[in-house]
Amino acid sequence: MSRPPVFLLSDFGGRDAYVGVMKARIASLAPGAPLVDLVHELPPQDLTAGQLQVEAALPYLPAGAVLLAVVDPGVGGERRGVALDLRLPGEPPRPLWAVAPDNGLLTPLLSSGRVRAAVGLRRGAVVPPGPGSTFDGRDLFAPAAGALAAGAELGALGAELAASSLRRRPLPEPTGGAGGWRGEVLYVDRFGNLITNVRAELLPAAADTLVRVGAVELRGLRRAFADVEVGAPLAYVGSLGRLELALRDGDAASAWGAAAGTPLTVASAEASAEPPSNATSA
Amino acid sequence: MSRPPVFLLSDFGGRDAYVGVMKARIASLAPGAPLVDLVHELPPQDLTAGQLQVEAALPYLPAGAVLLAVVDPGVGGERRGVALDLRLPGEPPRPLWAVAPDNGLLTPLLSSGRVRAAVGLRRGAVVPPGPGSTFDGRDLFAPAAGALAAGAELGALGAELAASSLRRRPLPEPTGGAGGWRGEVLYVDRFGNLITNVRAELLPAAADTLVRVGAVELRGLRRAFADVEVGAPLAYVGSLGRLELALRDGDAASAWGAAAGTPLTVASAEASAEPPSNATSA
Amino acid sequence: MSRPPVFLLSDFGGRDAYVGVMKARIASLAPGAPLVDLVHELPPQDLTAGQLQVEAALPYLPAGAVLLAVVDPGVGGERRGVALDLRLPGEPPRPLWAVAPDNGLLTPLLSSGRVRAAVGLRRGAVVPPGPGSTFDGRDLFAPAAGALAAGAELGALGAELAASSLRRRPLPEPTGGAGGWRGEVLYVDRFGNLITNVRAELLPAAADTLVRVGAVELRGLRRAFADVEVGAPLAYVGSLGRLELALRDGDAASAWGAAAGTPLTVASAEASAEPPSNATSA
Repeated sequence: MSRPPVFLLSDFGGRDAYVGVMKARIASLAPGAPLVDLVHELPPQDLTAGQLQVEAALPYLPAGAVLLAVVDPGVGGERRGVALDLRLPGEPPRPLWAVAPDNGLLTPLLSSGRVRAAVGLRRGAVVPPGPGSTFDGRDLFAPAAGALAAGAELGALGAELAASSLRRRPLPEPTGGAGGWRGEVLYVDRFGNLITNVRAELLPAAADTLVRVGAVELRGLRRAFADVEVGAPLAYVGSLGRLELALRDGDAASAWGAAAGTPLTVASAEASAEPPSNATSA
Repeated sequence: MSRPPVFLLSDFGGRDAYVGVMKARIASLAPGAPLVDLVHELPPQDLTAGQLQVEAALPYLPAGAVLLAVVDPGVGGERRGVALDLRLPGEPPRPLWAVAPDNGLLTPLLSSGRVRAAVGLRRGAVVPPGPGSTFDGRDLFAPAAGALAAGAELGALGAELAASSLRRRPLPEPTGGAGGWRGEVLYVDRFGNLITNVRAELLPAAADTLVRVGAVELRGLRRAFADVEVGAPLAYVGSLGRLELALRDGDAASAWGAAAGTPLTVASAEASAEPPSNATSA
Repeated sequence: MSRPPVFLLSDFGGRDAYVGVMKARIASLAPGAPLVDLVHELPPQDLTAGQLQVEAALPYLPAGAVLLAVVDPGVGGERRGVALDLRLPGEPPRPLWAVAPDNGLLTPLLSSGRVRAAVGLRRGAVVPPGPGSTFDGRDLFAPAAGALAAGAELGALGAELAASSLRRRPLPEPTGGAGGWRGEVLYVDRFGNLITNVRAELLPAAADTLVRVGAVELRGLRRAFADVEVGAPLAYVGSLGRLELALRDGDAASAWGAAAGTPLTVASAEASAEPPSNATSA
C-alpha cells in the first residue's frame, strides 16, 4: 500500500538541518511516504506569513495528505501540539490530516464543519520523549505526522479535544465599507509583490478600483502582469484571491518602502472626485 | 507501474509556497511520481539564468523524466505554454518530456532533431480553468506536467505545433576569432564563481590562455581549484563545459565587482606580445 | 523491492542546479530511491558547519539510509573520495552508508567501532569518468551514492581502506575544567541562535550556570524559549545537546555582534564572587 504524502511548512529555512531532521524522523516511521516541501523560508516566528501560506496551499493538497506545519515561537511553553482529522470541501470532500502547534497557524483550516476530530499530542506517544524542549518539530510534530502517514489512528497520538477549543488567530481584516476600505500588506513575496488583506470580493469594478499605498496611486485593476509595461506598477487579484500590488519585473516592496503591515486604501475612482494633488499616477 | 520523476526549475524561491503548490497539483494528478528540485532561487525573471541551468541539467536527466520549467515574466500575456516530447542524444537515446512557457527558456532543448512532437497547452485540458492569470505555474504548467507523469498522451494537452515555431532565445555568443575572443559573464553561482559564455572548445591551449576581466588578468587554465592556493584566482573549464573564473575558497564576483553581463577577453598569451602595464598578474 | 532513501548535505545552496544535478544522477542509477535534503545552505566551504549538521542528523537517519555529504574545498586535489559501511549504535544497531570527500566532514561518524568497511572511490567505477575536476558531487559522489541505493556492494566502488586511515577533523573543544570553561561559537543558525562547542555534560547545575559572551552575561540555564519574555536573552541546552545562546523571537548573533569563532566563558555563579561591574545582567 502506498503511503500518503506529507507536506511540510515551517520557518526553519535552509541553513540548518532542522527540516531535514524532521524528514528523517518521518522516513523512519513511514518509509516511502513522499515528503513534499511547501515552504520553509518564512520570516522567523511569523505566524501571519505561515497562515497565509497554509491558505495558499489548502485548495491544492491531494486527498489523504498529511500537512505538517511548524512556526512555533512558543516552543517549550504551555501551547499544546495538535493533530486534526479534516474534511475539505469539494466533490467528493477531501480527507486531510494536519499536525501543528495549537497557536493559530492552522486557522485557515478551522472553518465550521471541516474538523472531524482533534487530539492534543501526547509526548512519547510515538517515540520516547527526548531531553530537550526547544525542537518540538523533531521531537513531537514530525513523529506524529510520520505515525499518521504510516496509518496510525488519530486517537493513538493523544486525547481527544473539542474542535471549538482549537486556537484561532484571524488575520487582520480591512475596515470600511462600500465607500472605501482601509487594509494592509500581509506579506511580501519573493518578487517583492505586496499581498494584502483585501479579498477580491471586496473590490469595486476593475476599471474603477483606486488603490493608494504611501505616495503611490494605482488606478484600475489589471488581469495580469503582461497587461502593463515592464517596470510599471499594477494592482491585480493574485493567486490567493487577494488584492496584490506589484511592479512588473521589478520589486515593489523595495521601490515603495513597503512591508508587512504597511497600510493602504481601496476606493472606487468614481466616488473619488478629487484625487490628492501629490499622488503618483500609475 | 512506477511513475517517472518530475524535475522542477523556477525562479519562485523558497519564501513562498509557489513551488510547493505546483508540487501539490502534480501529486494530485500523479500520486507517487518523484518530485525533484533542480533549482528555484534563480534571479527573478532571469531567462538567461534559467536557460543556463536547463543546459546544466540536461545531460543528466534520467530517461523518461518530465522537466517542468517556469521562469515566466510574460505570464498572462500572449506567450503560449507548451509541452514537448523529446529524444535526447545518447545510446540509446533518452526520451524526455518538458513543460514550460514558450519564451525561450527551453532553448537548450531545441537543437535540431530532438523535438519529436510539441503542443500548445490548452487551458482547462487537465483541470478546470481558474480565475486568475498570474500563476500559470499552478494553473497551467504543473497540471500539464502531472498529466504527463500520470501517462497522458501529449495530444491530450493541446493542439499540435510545428517544432520550428517554438521560440528560441540564443544566449549571447562571444565575438572574435582565433586571435582572441570578447565574451561576457552569464551567471554568478552560489560561490561567486563567474560562469562565462566562452565554451571550452574556443579556448587556446591551457598554458597559453590569457583572460582579462576588469583589472584582473589570469594566465593559464587550471584543472581544478586545488591547483592554486587558497585565496588565489583561477580560470578553468567548469562543470558546464564553459570558461569559469573564480577565487579559490573566495567570492570572485564580490572581490572583482563582476556580475552577469560583465565583459571579458580571452587571448593566447603567445599572441599577446605586450600585456597592458596596469594588469594584475594572477 | 523499495530502495533506501538518500539524504543529501552540501554547501551548494539553491541558486544553482548543483544539488538538482546530483539528484538527477542518483535518480538515473536508483530510480525511485527517495531523495531527502538535509541541508544545502551551509556557508561555502565551511567544514565545521558541515560536521555539526552531520552530527545533528545522525541520531535520526533511518536504518539502511545512504548519506551523501559534499563540502569540498579541495575538489580536484589529492583528497580522496570515500564510501563507508557503518553500524550506528542502538537496539538493534542501524546500518548506514555514507559517501563523502575524505576531508573530515564525516568525523562525527568515525567513532570507534562504527565503521565496518571503507573504500576509496575509484573514478569511473559507476559512470564513465567526465572531463572536469571541479564538480565531484556530480561526477564521483552522487554516482557512488546512487549505486549504493541501487544495491551495489561497497567493494564495487573502489579499493578497501583501513578505517584508521580516514581523516578526522575534531571540532574545537572547550578548555578549562570544573572551575570554568572557555568555549566558542561554532555556528549561527537561521534564527541567529548561537550554537557553541560546550556540550551539556560540561555545564554546572542549571541555576548556577553563568555564561559570558562579549558584554552579555546570562545567568541560569533555561529549559525552553517560552521560559523568558519575548526579546529577552537565554542560555539553554539546544537540540544538538550543546549550550546555545539566543534572544527569544530575536536574532542574538546580530544583536550581540557574534559569529562562528566568537569566544565565550561558562562558569558556576556560586564560584563567581564578583561579577565584572560592566556586565549586562540578563
